[in-house]
Amino acid sequence: MFRIAVDAMGGDFAPKEQIAGAMMAIRNIPDIEIILYGDEQVIRPLLTNPERISIVHAPFVIPMGEKNPIQAIKSNKDTSSMARALQSLRNEEADAVVSSGATQALIAGAHILVRRMQGFKRTAIAPVIPSVSGKPTILLDSGANISIKPEFMLQQAYFAKIYAEEILNVENPRVGLINIGTEPGKGRELDHEAYALFSSTDLFEFYGNVEPKEILDPPCDILISDGFTANIVMKTIEGTAKGMGKLLKKHLTSTFFGKIGALLAKKNLNDFKKSISAEEIGGAVIYGLYKPVIKAQGASKEFGFYNGIRQAANICRTGVFEKVKQYLDTNQKEFEDE
Amino acid sequence: MFRIAVDAMGGDFAPKEQIAGAMMAIRNIPDIEIILYGDEQVIRPLLTNPERISIVHAPFVIPMGEKNPIQAIKSNKDTSSMARALQSLRNEEADAVVSSGATQALIAGAHILVRRMQGFKRTAIAPVIPSVSGKPTILLDSGANISIKPEFMLQQAYFAKIYAEEILNVENPRVGLINIGTEPGKGRELDHEAYALFSSTDLFEFYGNVEPKEILDPPCDILISDGFTANIVMKTIEGTAKGMGKLLKKHLTSTFFGKIGALLAKKNLNDFKKSISAEEIGGAVIYGLYKPVIKAQGASKEFGFYNGIRQAANICRTGVFEKVKQYLDTNQKEFEDE
Repeated sequence: MFRIAVDAMGGDFAPKEQIAGAMMAIRNIPDIEIILYGDEQVIRPLLTNPERISIVHAPFVIPMGEKNPIQAIKSNKDTSSMARALQSLRNEEADAVVSSGATQALIAGAHILVRRMQGFKRTAIAPVIPSVSGKPTILLDSGANISIKPEFMLQQAYFAKIYAEEILNVENPRVGLINIGTEPGKGRELDHEAYALFSSTDLFEFYGNVEPKEILDPPCDILISDGFTANIVMKTIEGTAKGMGKLLKKHLTSTFFGKIGALLAKKNLNDFKKSISAEEIGGAVIYGLYKPVIKAQGASKEFGFYNGIRQAANICRTGVFEKVKQYLDTNQKEFEDE
Repeated sequence: MFRIAVDAMGGDFAPKEQIAGAMMAIRNIPDIEIILYGDEQVIRPLLTNPERISIVHAPFVIPMGEKNPIQAIKSNKDTSSMARALQSLRNEEADAVVSSGATQALIAGAHILVRRMQGFKRTAIAPVIPSVSGKPTILLDSGANISIKPEFMLQQAYFAKIYAEEILNVENPRVGLINIGTEPGKGRELDHEAYALFSSTDLFEFYGNVEPKEILDPPCDILISDGFTANIVMKTIEGTAKGMGKLLKKHLTSTFFGKIGALLAKKNLNDFKKSISAEEIGGAVIYGLYKPVIKAQGASKEFGFYNGIRQAANICRTGVFEKVKQYLDTNQKEFEDE
């Protein structure tokens, strides 16, 4: 049995959708138990089937856009549903955490309340983004480290490689460096150094530089950059997809035939919408912690949140974190330059 | 009469579409003359109406993806269509240049062969991107400066403000800083410094930080960052739009009703495609040169290239560059820290 700690209070539609997602997970995944952290009085009536689900009372919610997430976590360590869920890892009460609460608070909380993997220098957030081919792409670091060294990016890329193999079933995953051009000399000092380091490693197959104009149809499985750049990429994908969706709707409904056409193609348009929806894909994993913490989308509904839990269970079952730990243990010396 | 120097040889469909675009411009814009730089023998038969169009023989084309664009421009100064078009500005033979040739070569060529505006510290490339509302957004710097100082970004933003007022007819344009969060303390050192500087200026209205998840529906008219970041944003928009277009097509044609629906909505889908197409919008302007140089899309066809020429004529007619020069002349002291 894997024990999944769920922050029931974080997210745009919490706790209703989080609780529904947890019950869906229990129905579909036989080898898990769930601990819901949140306001017991609110959760209890929504939890129509408490099979293999327990509740720990922790009613406080760290608001989205909290200006000082570190302080918020520290001063609400015992009452915040997110903080309590995170602490369950250190206390050996759970094997993974799933939360759709405020991203910055979750990262801050993970740093304060969850140990890092020994030898792993900088944690990274790694969402999986959709692609035209249907093959998922791991994008990192999507926001944990504004500035970073190439050696630490190497560790993160290796983590992503193991994740891609074990969770996404990609054979021999290839790593690409996000850059403004494909030639080796493109970009900033960091990009040149990372290019040189990645070219000389045998930890994974390095594809080279990838321009984001191929972001939904990339020639590799893992795309990496510093936390500022990859976060900008992720948010630009989100903004473009959202904007294009609105434009498409506007144009389709502007004429009679357009409306009829859209009605006939309704199922297809919905499939299209699904194919680019984060709901279908699950959450972003924080790499480099002692145990898995999964950030589900803030707007997660039942199915999206269920997917986050499924992902957490898969990570536990396949032992991704253990594999990375083993590698770090046998290669300590390479990374002693912090 | 404004004299537009056209690089007839650069671009995916050159010189055919460039020549067609030039003839379309002559038909529609009464106050311009065009000088075509390129292979005279190839151009002559395609130029079915040479009214107000002259040809200067310069047959060499700097290839896309040229590894050393600076060298390429220098060693082909007299034979390259792009280099010759650029030189026409310095020689007072033309008032603006339009090229859809290799971007890096055009930037390198502009730096070598066209003077900077006195007092303007760093040139910037500023494409205009579409938005959901239909109101265009200026995005800069899309690739000229990998690293930059906030003071130089201030000049670029001011240039964009004048451009937005004069060419895009925006009243009181607002400037936003591209960042990974909206709070003032977000991002890198550069972002903090730029935020502080922009907050204290009265050169333009500063909106604050803008996350790219609003990239197609932004709360301001001008979005600025360093040349690496803004280029990443531009290419991610391109990649997402391209990928979503493919996915939409795939989903629409996957069923019978989807196909029928798509047929009925064909005009609407085409309008949608147009609304996000660079063809409709024209080229990216290089800010900070002595005279305007416009980079039309590499894939420009007749209409797209015509739009680039129209844009060049508008810039000349409204005196955007002169207005920025006046400002720099009277504010020299502010920018003496190079």
